[in-house]
Amino acid sequence: MKISSVLGLCVLGSTLLLAGNSLVEKAKSNGLTPIPDSKLALLKIIDDPKDPITNAKVELGKKLYFDPRISKSGIISCNTCHNLGLGGVDGVSAAIGNKWTPNPHHLNSPTVYNSVFFTAQFWDGRSPNLADQAQGPTLASPEMAASPKHIEDVVTSMPSYIKEFKLAYGDNVKVDFKRITSTIAIFEKTLVTPSRYDDFLNGDSSALNKAEKEGLSTFINKGCVSCHTGIALGGTMQPFELAGKYKFAKVGDFRGDKKGMVKTPTLRNITETAPYFHNGEVWSLKDAIKMMGSIQLGIKINDKDAMKIKTFFKALKGRKPNISYPQLPESTSTTPKPVD
Amino acid sequence: MKISSVLGLCVLGSTLLLAGNSLVEKAKSNGLTPIPDSKLALLKIIDDPKDPITNAKVELGKKLYFDPRISKSGIISCNTCHNLGLGGVDGVSAAIGNKWTPNPHHLNSPTVYNSVFFTAQFWDGRSPNLADQAQGPTLASPEMAASPKHIEDVVTSMPSYIKEFKLAYGDNVKVDFKRITSTIAIFEKTLVTPSRYDDFLNGDSSALNKAEKEGLSTFINKGCVSCHTGIALGGTMQPFELAGKYKFAKVGDFRGDKKGMVKTPTLRNITETAPYFHNGEVWSLKDAIKMMGSIQLGIKINDKDAMKIKTFFKALKGRKPNISYPQLPESTSTTPKPVD
Repeated sequence: MKISSVLGLCVLGSTLLLAGNSLVEKAKSNGLTPIPDSKLALLKIIDDPKDPITNAKVELGKKLYFDPRISKSGIISCNTCHNLGLGGVDGVSAAIGNKWTPNPHHLNSPTVYNSVFFTAQFWDGRSPNLADQAQGPTLASPEMAASPKHIEDVVTSMPSYIKEFKLAYGDNVKVDFKRITSTIAIFEKTLVTPSRYDDFLNGDSSALNKAEKEGLSTFINKGCVSCHTGIALGGTMQPFELAGKYKFAKVGDFRGDKKGMVKTPTLRNITETAPYFHNGEVWSLKDAIKMMGSIQLGIKINDKDAMKIKTFFKALKGRKPNISYPQLPESTSTTPKPVD
Repeated sequence: MKISSVLGLCVLGSTLLLAGNSLVEKAKSNGLTPIPDSKLALLKIIDDPKDPITNAKVELGKKLYFDPRISKSGIISCNTCHNLGLGGVDGVSAAIGNKWTPNPHHLNSPTVYNSVFFTAQFWDGRSPNLADQAQGPTLASPEMAASPKHIEDVVTSMPSYIKEFKLAYGDNVKVDFKRITSTIAIFEKTLVTPSRYDDFLNGDSSALNKAEKEGLSTFINKGCVSCHTGIALGGTMQPFELAGKYKFAKVGDFRGDKKGMVKTPTLRNITETAPYFHNGEVWSLKDAIKMMGSIQLGIKINDKDAMKIKTFFKALKGRKPNISYPQLPESTSTTPKPVD
């Protein structure tokens, strides 16, 4: 009895291990890659030797990210639409910006978390990286509505900002629009959220439970990985409405880039980032999964399989970096006044 | 030589000590009281035995304070107008709320820091405490524009909020509008910022430098303490335009409470909370000091004295509590959708 029990457990254990291992192999052979569990390996992916990530830059970038004074009105910060307490989004269909202007194309704010892994930024992929991306919303009139001069004047009006730029980049730093936005991007690069899914792919076979493993397997088998792949499970440009019509295609005028390609959103923290799709018209994750089946894959994903995939998605909720809310430098008499 | 030098230093030291001590006595006899340096003594002032401050309530209240989903639009939180990174204010003349509506009376957002010490809340003092006050902006249509039901529905739609309320108040807690807003108020009670001024009044005579001591003395001598008194250096109802006309009196329709009384703003962190006065029309602290002389005290405060007082005000910049930016609970399928 005892011996057979022990043997039984051993067999069960090795089967599970095998199942776990083969699922990991299956995931990796389908292009899924984890956030590395070593900081050094992660840095190899996200860091740029020409402008390396340092604590001084990250702390300064965080302040600028949370500083509403760089907007024309003085009340909109990067965090307004990419709220770090809400999965990196604003939770509304279309972003609302300066003077309560909805995004003119009815576009939904994508999450900033893990955006460092995207090969393209913005829904139409027009921007190659975060430093370039960060310039857009600061200037767009329906967003922060500022000018490069306004942003430079705000930041350089405060001696303690200047001091922090010198600390981060040396005494000869030119505190201009490009440097300010690239510093915001360096903070954004650190907004990486490893999850139980990563732990699983990194070798901890117990990190996902049975239902989550089944969900991952279904996710791969159904072909979702053809777009939601790589380290971000998304973040690359893909054709949209490949196999069927999007129910809300008429909401907003966005039709992708010149070739009709649309940036695939990341699935990391997807349970926190409703509403879904480029125009934020779908609030239910289960509905979104089923719609993607018909629109992109040309298959019917039934309720049961959609729930399995959704169960897996819950394991993509990542561990957020602990962010100490910054005390911003005091405005001075030369700080430009907000314009409402 | 040596002996006389030592004697000289001793005499100088005791003179300074005496000067320091007598200034402390002068300040205290004029009604100025420090934030106590013992936590227990502070709790005696801010805590309510009927609803005591606990870590669980503070953490929950912090989440609610930063949660924009309790507003009708889903994008305005308490922190939008009372930004904890900007001295507890929004830095604009009149608050801007739901649908970019400016405050209809053109009222400036007062700081939340140290507001626990005020004897009255709102510019017209209509609210006796923070728990009562917190209900106002959540419902006001030009602010968060929500209804009690919306707020209750949002909060109770998320199991982890319910769990935290039970943890804070026990399993039988009723998670209603009143409890939600009073929990926000408990977090706000902890937003107390001791400064070098408090250290000085608490016995550290070196906490203020010579110019700051001179500024404090001028501040008292000019009579500013007649309104800016107590632990908050403000926060009580006082008559306005006692001795002269306010230059911007015609901006907005606010004329105080029924008796024409206006809540005196706190001077704590005043260098961070421009623009000044109830309608936020004055951006220069020096101008504000001089104007108060003529409007309230019927005296001319010259540039030199105004600068002395301003120098003292810098020492009122307090040490802010370290706030870890909260990760908010996930919305669920029953969470009310934002309305833009």
